[in-house]
Amino acid sequence: MENQKVQIFDTTLRDGEQVPGCKLNKEQKLKIARRLDELGVDVIEAGFPVSSPGDFEAVEAIAKNVNNATVCGLTRAVKNDIEVAAKALRKAKKPRIHTGIGTSDSHIKYKFNASKDEIIERAVNAVAYAKTFVDDVEFYAEDAGRTDNEFLAQVCTEVIKAGATVLNIPDTTGYCLPEEYGAKIKYLTENVIGIEKAILSCHCHNDLGLATANSIAGVINGARQIECTINGIGERAGNTSLEEVVMILRQHPTLGLDTNVNAKLLNEMSRMVSESMGMLVQPNKAIVGANAFAHSSGIHQDGVIKNRETYEIIDPADVGVNESSIILTARSGRAALAYRAKKIGYELTKLQLDVVYQEFLRLADRKKEVIDDDVHRIIEVSKIGILV
Amino acid sequence: MENQKVQIFDTTLRDGEQVPGCKLNKEQKLKIARRLDELGVDVIEAGFPVSSPGDFEAVEAIAKNVNNATVCGLTRAVKNDIEVAAKALRKAKKPRIHTGIGTSDSHIKYKFNASKDEIIERAVNAVAYAKTFVDDVEFYAEDAGRTDNEFLAQVCTEVIKAGATVLNIPDTTGYCLPEEYGAKIKYLTENVIGIEKAILSCHCHNDLGLATANSIAGVINGARQIECTINGIGERAGNTSLEEVVMILRQHPTLGLDTNVNAKLLNEMSRMVSESMGMLVQPNKAIVGANAFAHSSGIHQDGVIKNRETYEIIDPADVGVNESSIILTARSGRAALAYRAKKIGYELTKLQLDVVYQEFLRLADRKKEVIDDDVHRIIEVSKIGILV
Repeated sequence: MENQKVQIFDTTLRDGEQVPGCKLNKEQKLKIARRLDELGVDVIEAGFPVSSPGDFEAVEAIAKNVNNATVCGLTRAVKNDIEVAAKALRKAKKPRIHTGIGTSDSHIKYKFNASKDEIIERAVNAVAYAKTFVDDVEFYAEDAGRTDNEFLAQVCTEVIKAGATVLNIPDTTGYCLPEEYGAKIKYLTENVIGIEKAILSCHCHNDLGLATANSIAGVINGARQIECTINGIGERAGNTSLEEVVMILRQHPTLGLDTNVNAKLLNEMSRMVSESMGMLVQPNKAIVGANAFAHSSGIHQDGVIKNRETYEIIDPADVGVNESSIILTARSGRAALAYRAKKIGYELTKLQLDVVYQEFLRLADRKKEVIDDDVHRIIEVSKIGILV
Repeated sequence: MENQKVQIFDTTLRDGEQVPGCKLNKEQKLKIARRLDELGVDVIEAGFPVSSPGDFEAVEAIAKNVNNATVCGLTRAVKNDIEVAAKALRKAKKPRIHTGIGTSDSHIKYKFNASKDEIIERAVNAVAYAKTFVDDVEFYAEDAGRTDNEFLAQVCTEVIKAGATVLNIPDTTGYCLPEEYGAKIKYLTENVIGIEKAILSCHCHNDLGLATANSIAGVINGARQIECTINGIGERAGNTSLEEVVMILRQHPTLGLDTNVNAKLLNEMSRMVSESMGMLVQPNKAIVGANAFAHSSGIHQDGVIKNRETYEIIDPADVGVNESSIILTARSGRAALAYRAKKIGYELTKLQLDVVYQEFLRLADRKKEVIDDDVHRIIEVSKIGILV
């Protein structure tokens, strides 16, 4: 059976860009949008057009310039927001309006001071109004993670009747556990009337470090879109990392799910976004961190040298990284040292290696990383020792 | 019913420190170990004593200086490793030796070129030998994540007979999905003979961004120790983040699990490790990232100002952060601007706010962040406008 496709909805330019310090100008946004299109994402959320004139212009420019992906604009469940978004999206080949409202008790009470019926009415009106401008309307039930499932199913049923094509179920505060989020999606697939006319979308935040796991639990339980950002950037602890969910589905073929993303472009895409926004990616970031494929412990290096698969589940080349680095430190063993020595031109006998290794350890205890020049020097010095 | 305790096994100084560029000197390690002890971790893995003389000395110094936590040293299933570790741990109040061997087909075949029976024999011999030095012996089944469950249960059964007190089930390559890892732990609780004499430990790697979710799946299914590092540092994409698992258990009291960690020290501990190792924590890192409690979008800021709980699941003070930052950007709404204005001394009428907000947006479209001085200047300029 062929894999089912999970749509990748990239919100780097909306939920990512709204982060402190991440603001981009129109040209930067356009460049990233074009590259996301090449990467193969299905939807680009380009911005929140009503929020500022700069954002409006950026969404307009992206709509005009993206060839393959759907271009989406965010709105609140407010007439003017929807009109402005529709205007910004006029030139898009595949436009989508993303509208919605908070559905949890906390949102209804503190944010809107409304009743549940009023929330449904506003939701339906927003979707119906957006539908007068575009065919493709995504509805978000903000704080769905903390919304009672029964009410959530009721809201979803009503907005599908009004024409919603995608139902976004955000864990806005990043609170859900994977089991809980998966169960919520399953409940909706079973209890929303007309669910066959729409797809469910996972939008998870990383406040507890679970955004990726929650999104995967969502698609295992029937969702068919994941909202994510490059490098997992976004409000607070960020959104689901695009690179992580893409590679999980690719590395776990038994799930029967895949995306349209060309993984070979992931590493470059990560750098481009990090550099444009000035948002650092920590070295130990999964898939795209500088150390993601670096082995330093002796035990591991020995294993990788004997057979890459012993310690690496992803071939670095598959995500656009040239080769896994073998870095020498005080924890590196003889095999790693011999391997590096060979790479720079020395075939050491076992006896020579023993001598060189002791020298190496003395140096490595003082220095964080031992580079090729150091290895060269140690060997030359040790050789003299051996000859004498 | 009182919460059951999950032991926190910190391996910042072993699996974390062996990372390229993270090397620390003895004094730095000692300082971190003392602080980890104050933080309330149950076990400190201090190093891999046989790997280098510097590592030996550090483990020895930590063993002597830690008051409450168990101090643990790593070894391979090799006599000399175990002797050296025992020597380094002599002065520890509560010493633990952590020994083990690879158990997956890939490890057995490519790394050891041995049979399954030989692997069990080596494992049992290592545990029995370690047991001649210390009471508390933890056994790791390296690459357990890819080890067939039946063989894994057999290995566990035998090492418990030999005296193992803790069974570490590492997902060494970071490949498992949470459901799969949880099921593995459950299988072991049900199929290892004598399991009541030992506790199961989760040691997960983050190659696919799932280390935290896998560890939580592990304890939900019966494990009672999590191996983790501050900031999630470690080999490749790192280990499970200590701060994430601690806060997940605290924020989800219905799981009935908790740790001994004093969460109020988490933020400071994170900075201390990051600074000593020179390992950056990305701003969007959960719990300890610089942006973890920063709200910038207008929608969210408005919500937080009305009621913190609308968007924040953790009170920043609970993890040692002074207050959630309200940062102004082009996505900030009127409420956020009014709130900031009030903080710096201006009570704006609705009309004034409208005028000031337009000015604010013009500035925010050009500038990444609008600081207090900018707000002050905009208001003063706008006031003149209003007065004229």
